[in-house]
Amino acid sequence: MAENEGKVKLLGCWASPFSRRVEMALKLKGIPYEYLEEALPNKSPLLLELNPIHKKVPVLVHNDKILPESHLILEYIDQTWSNNPILPQDPYEKAMARFWAKFIDEQILTVGFRSLVRAEKGREAAIEEAREKFAFLEKEVTRKNFFGGKTIGFVDMVAGSIIPFCLARLWEGMRIDVIPEDEFPELNRWIKNLKDIESMRECIPHREKQIEHMMKVSERYKLA
Amino acid sequence: MAENEGKVKLLGCWASPFSRRVEMALKLKGIPYEYLEEALPNKSPLLLELNPIHKKVPVLVHNDKILPESHLILEYIDQTWSNNPILPQDPYEKAMARFWAKFIDEQILTVGFRSLVRAEKGREAAIEEAREKFAFLEKEVTRKNFFGGKTIGFVDMVAGSIIPFCLARLWEGMRIDVIPEDEFPELNRWIKNLKDIESMRECIPHREKQIEHMMKVSERYKLA
Repeated sequence: MAENEGKVKLLGCWASPFSRRVEMALKLKGIPYEYLEEALPNKSPLLLELNPIHKKVPVLVHNDKILPESHLILEYIDQTWSNNPILPQDPYEKAMARFWAKFIDEQILTVGFRSLVRAEKGREAAIEEAREKFAFLEKEVTRKNFFGGKTIGFVDMVAGSIIPFCLARLWEGMRIDVIPEDEFPELNRWIKNLKDIESMRECIPHREKQIEHMMKVSERYKLA
Repeated sequence: MAENEGKVKLLGCWASPFSRRVEMALKLKGIPYEYLEEALPNKSPLLLELNPIHKKVPVLVHNDKILPESHLILEYIDQTWSNNPILPQDPYEKAMARFWAKFIDEQILTVGFRSLVRAEKGREAAIEEAREKFAFLEKEVTRKNFFGGKTIGFVDMVAGSIIPFCLARLWEGMRIDVIPEDEFPELNRWIKNLKDIESMRECIPHREKQIEHMMKVSERYKLA
């Protein structure tokens, strides 16, 4: 059996940006897969068996291979199914794609989450910090359709699942605009480009359902 | 100029396991490089210029290319200089190498650091948790010379810089044995294998100097 043949299963959760980006890659590559929704926070025995260390979605199962963690899964998918490449081949460009993906998951997401949980003063500081971080990304997408260049790639999937289709909706629910168009014209252009891609739209959560969900999460975590 | 030609510079710090592992890879590949020691916590203007986002060592400069973050640097080195490969070629094995490297940097290092900073009761809990995590690694190296198999690879460099040549020395300074030989025979065998490799020994900090340094760090961070 060729490396890219066989059965693909994805354990995910509709509200998880980490699951969303894996579906984006599978759809972009045209890989047929079975999707198993995890009703978090009640983790299925299958999830605990497949990912005993982290106990988290997403988990990709390809034949007898079990892969946790979205960045690893995206790289595995890209190396195994080489059509519609999502990572650059050049070692330096590849390193930079990994750098920005990590920056988004570690820095943007963390500060975005802080804007949710802190009291007003801390929230303002978190939003200010988020804008400072967005300024780095604004430069990255300047004069490009996508982070990856002309076509959607690794950083677009990571950033897309976190920024427009997670944090921006959270901030919409909180009635604050953290990425205003006049301050971040290039990021807003990039968001529009993403929304134009059908395989992207198919993977993102329903807007109102997600805002409602995030407002509930926000209430649960809000600190004094 | 071929991709793997030209000048290589490394900005590092003797006490940083993240710098140590990059030197390991450079030595293993036989890549000539200039080493610039950063006298942390006073960061040089060059470091701040080259790594404006994270402001951290290590930074690798290869001709006009600037690479921060040890995992990205190791992958870049391996793709650019293909002799003595450190990452497997197979997509699944590669994903697993990345998985364990991340596990060590995120889970083992975090819990190790917690064993340092917490008061006695919390410290015991952190050590217990560290042992639970080491049990996963004990399985990984069973019947293998190295994490990568017969020869030293990516996970060995990441794990080597953190476990025997950082945390174990810290615990030695605290007079506790978190990885006793009878409980973790395979991990201890792996540590001995690492110590036998000359290019590894050349990259690790001087033992007494490091223990003294870590005990100072420990005093600074100790919590009530």
